[in-house]
Formats: sequence, structure tokens, C-alpha cells
Amino acid sequence: MAMEGYWRFLALLGSALLVGFLSVIFTLVWVLHYREGLGWDGSALEFNWHPVLVVTGFVFIQGIGTGTSWGVSKFLMNIHAGYNAIAAILQLIALVAVFENTTCLNNIPMYSLHSWVGLIHVIWYCFTLLSGFFIFLLPWARLSLRAFLMPIHVYSGLVIFGTVIATALMGVTEKLIFSLRNPAYSTFPPEGVFVNTLGLLILVFGALIFWIVTRPQWKRPKEPNSTILQPDGGTEQGARGSMPAYSGNNMDKSDSELNNEVAARKRNLALDEAGQRSTM
Amino acid sequence: MAMEGYWRFLALLGSALLVGFLSVIFTLVWVLHYREGLGWDGSALEFNWHPVLVVTGFVFIQGIGTGTSWGVSKFLMNIHAGYNAIAAILQLIALVAVFENTTCLNNIPMYSLHSWVGLIHVIWYCFTLLSGFFIFLLPWARLSLRAFLMPIHVYSGLVIFGTVIATALMGVTEKLIFSLRNPAYSTFPPEGVFVNTLGLLILVFGALIFWIVTRPQWKRPKEPNSTILQPDGGTEQGARGSMPAYSGNNMDKSDSELNNEVAARKRNLALDEAGQRSTM
Repeated sequence: MAMEGYWRFLALLGSALLVGFLSVIFTLVWVLHYREGLGWDGSALEFNWHPVLVVTGFVFIQGIGTGTSWGVSKFLMNIHAGYNAIAAILQLIALVAVFENTTCLNNIPMYSLHSWVGLIHVIWYCFTLLSGFFIFLLPWARLSLRAFLMPIHVYSGLVIFGTVIATALMGVTEKLIFSLRNPAYSTFPPEGVFVNTLGLLILVFGALIFWIVTRPQWKRPKEPNSTILQPDGGTEQGARGSMPAYSGNNMDKSDSELNNEVAARKRNLALDEAGQRSTM
Repeated sequence: MAMEGYWRFLALLGSALLVGFLSVIFTLVWVLHYREGLGWDGSALEFNWHPVLVVTGFVFIQGIGTGTSWGVSKFLMNIHAGYNAIAAILQLIALVAVFENTTCLNNIPMYSLHSWVGLIHVIWYCFTLLSGFFIFLLPWARLSLRAFLMPIHVYSGLVIFGTVIATALMGVTEKLIFSLRNPAYSTFPPEGVFVNTLGLLILVFGALIFWIVTRPQWKRPKEPNSTILQPDGGTEQGARGSMPAYSGNNMDKSDSELNNEVAARKRNLALDEAGQRSTM
């Protein structure tokens, strides 16, 4: 049962990886086959790095980074942190590419809703990434601070990921309207249909990741042998306490059960305060 | 403590209502002040019903409908169903408005990513609404079917709501690029800045609703007097079993606690099978 849930999780993550990878391939085909290609000279070739790096970094890698926050194992928690760090670097280059091409060289200001939402997203993402690094990954933060910030961290991660998808779809819309003139976007040229399909792939990828990170806690190991998936037992429970998981049926708990839970949580706090609370 | 959580929920719902209401006002100002106004003659006046009804129905009312699915009380569960029914009617008119104006009268096909995603959204929304009505609101569905479908219903509701926001932002982007020619969108005309702000309001509204529907179960009443908020005790627990709620810290449950929960759930099943399982 425990392993079954684990394999189901891996199968879903595999599907997400496939759809995400396909999105990256579609973006590459878009800029290499339908557009001007890639380069770094301030021209459209440099702009084209923007969709490629955004879909690779913001959507694909950040999405897998969010998906792995389900935190079945310590290994996946490190993937979560590592993937988001890689995503941040790609995102930085993606922003440089679009700024050089628009604001610096062509004097196009940040006027569109896409750019406004994108900017807010980037600021919020950096804040979440840095606070995540200093508070959850480094071992020095107080457990009370972690407990307070974890729900906000999880919520931020999901809203940021949703915002990325909305921003990407706005970007695709903008780019297609501006680029497809002759033949026009409204005459269903191959590029229009192809990039619309890319938009749908990005949406499906987002839906898969959202399914993974909201699956009920009952899919997680319950058996005594669940320690197989939790190599260091109690220590990890505190850090994983507020991971996103749908509480399938736990509305109908009696007070005594809630009291049991509070007691269990206190035991974990005690364990964690003993200095074993790093997630690294 | 129980009441405190309840008031916090109402305060958040109030904030969401305020931001959602502001979004509707902004949309009305957009079409009445900056655009041609409203009418029903196949012209741009008819098209303008599309953003007004989409923001009112799809975003605002459906959002509150999703937010109230937190299900603190039976009363709010009925709001959830009722709001979604009203939203569905407004959405139908919104679609007629845009179809008459584009496809029928101006021979513009459904070519854009906005229209593709919008169509998929509407089909999925109708399916979720109808299945929700027949399976969860009417009293005849088997509890096992309800238990199986509830996580899918909750997940669908949230993904549909997120998709609505992404689709609305794409629609705003399209409309501004097509409409703002002289002065151009890129020169920051008042309409551009105003409608970008509308886009941000829609995003903030979505973030507030998402915060509400993912709040931890520990914010819910735990005291023995929690029955104040659960007027008909056990009967409602089965139906509310899979409502969206973040399982804040319930990862760290021991096996015995999980066994207790299973036993409690079995008791509820027995109660429900006794014929008291309608949510109406």
C-alpha cells in the first residue's frame, strides 16, 4: 500500500516530466523553425531566448521543483530546492534577454499586463526562494519561525506557479498577435495552431503538477514499514509538517483524535529542538 | 478559538468580496467609459457584455462559490452550489455575446489561445457543475461514489477557477492590443493602465480565494462546542469529508491515530447510509 502510493506518485511525476519536456521541445521548435532562431545580439534572436528560458526555467523546472515538494523522501526535498535554484538562474537570463531586446535597444517600455504580472511574479519568486533557503534549508531558523512561515511558503509556491502559467499564456498571446501578420493569426496558420497547442501543453503540465501537490495524505505510507521512505524518522516529520497535501477526510476527527495529534506534534517539536531539524 | 477561526474566515471572504466587487466595477467602467458601452445588436456594444459577464460570472461569483466551499456551515455549502448555478447562467450569456459578435456577424473563427482555453474551460465547468448537482446535492448518489468523486470535484473546481483567471488575463491582453491603436498600448494611455490594474485585481482576487480554500484544518473549530457551527452533527461530516483544506501538520500522525480516524470515518459511513446523507 505504501509502495503503491509511492509508485503512483512517481507515475504522475513521470507524466508531468513528459508533458513539461514536450513543452520545452515545442518552444524550441517554435523559435528555431517558425521564428528567427536563437542568438545574443540584441535582435529578435536574443528575444527568442525569453520564451525558451521561461518555459524551461519558470514552467518546466520550477514546476517539477513544486511537484517534488510533495516530499515523499529527503532526496525529493533536495530536488525541490535544487530545481528552484536552477530555475532562478535560467529566469535571470530570460529577463536579461527580453530587457536587452525591448527596453534597452528598441525603447519599448514595460507597458503590457504580461510584463506587469511577470515583474511582480519575479520579485515574489526571489523572495520565496531566498526565504526558503535561509529558513528551511539552512539549519539555523527557529522551529516556531519555520512553523509560522511554512504555510505561507507552500501557498506562495503554488500561487507563483499558477501565476507563471497565466503569464506564459499572456506572453504567447501577445507574441502571436504581434508576429502573425501575413498570414494573420485568425486564418489558422501552422505557427498559430502549433503555438496554441504549446499553450495547452503548458496548461496540462500545470494541472498535473497541481494534482500531485494536492493529493491526500492517505496516499502516503501508513504502515510501520513506512520508515523505508523516511530514512531519518522523526526528524523529517517536523520539517515536512506543512507540505501541501489534501486532507481527504480529516474533517471528521473527534476532539480526542485532535488532542492525540497535538501531543504527537509536541513530541516532534521536542525531537527537532534537540538539534536534528535541518532538512539538508 | 473556534469562533476566532470562523471570524478570520469571514474577514478573508469579505476581503475577497471587496476585491472581486472592485474587479466588476473596473470592468463596467472599462466598457462604459473607455469603450462603446453595452447593447445587444451584434456590434461592439454586444461584445462588451463578454468581459462584464465573464468577470461577474466566471471570476467574481464563481470565485466566491469556490471560496465558500470551505464549508464551515451547511449554509455556505448551499451558497457554493447556488453561486455556481448563477455563474453558469451569466457565463452562457457571456458566450452568446461573444459568439454573435465574432463568429456569427464578423466571421471571426475561434483561432486564439484565449478562445481555445476558454472553450475547454466551459466544457469542463459544465461537467463539474452537473456532476456536482447530481452526485453531491441530490440525495441519491451512493456514498462510495461520492467519496471517489469528491477529490476530483474539489480539484476540478480549483483548476477551473485558476484557468478562468489565466483566460481572463489572456482576453484582457488580446482586447487591449486590438483596441489601443491611437494612442498605442505601449504609450501608457489611461485605458491601458486602468485595464492592466483590472488584470492585477483579478489576480489578487484569485490569490485570496486560493488562500481561503487551502487554509489548514486546524483553523476549524476543535472545541466540543464546535457543534455550534455544525448544526446537524454527524450527517454533515460525511458530505464535507473531502472539502478543500490544507492538512497543516497532519503528516506527523502515528498509525494509531490513523486507525482512530478510519474508525471514525466508518461510524460516519454508517450514519450516512442510514439515509441522512443529503447535503441539501
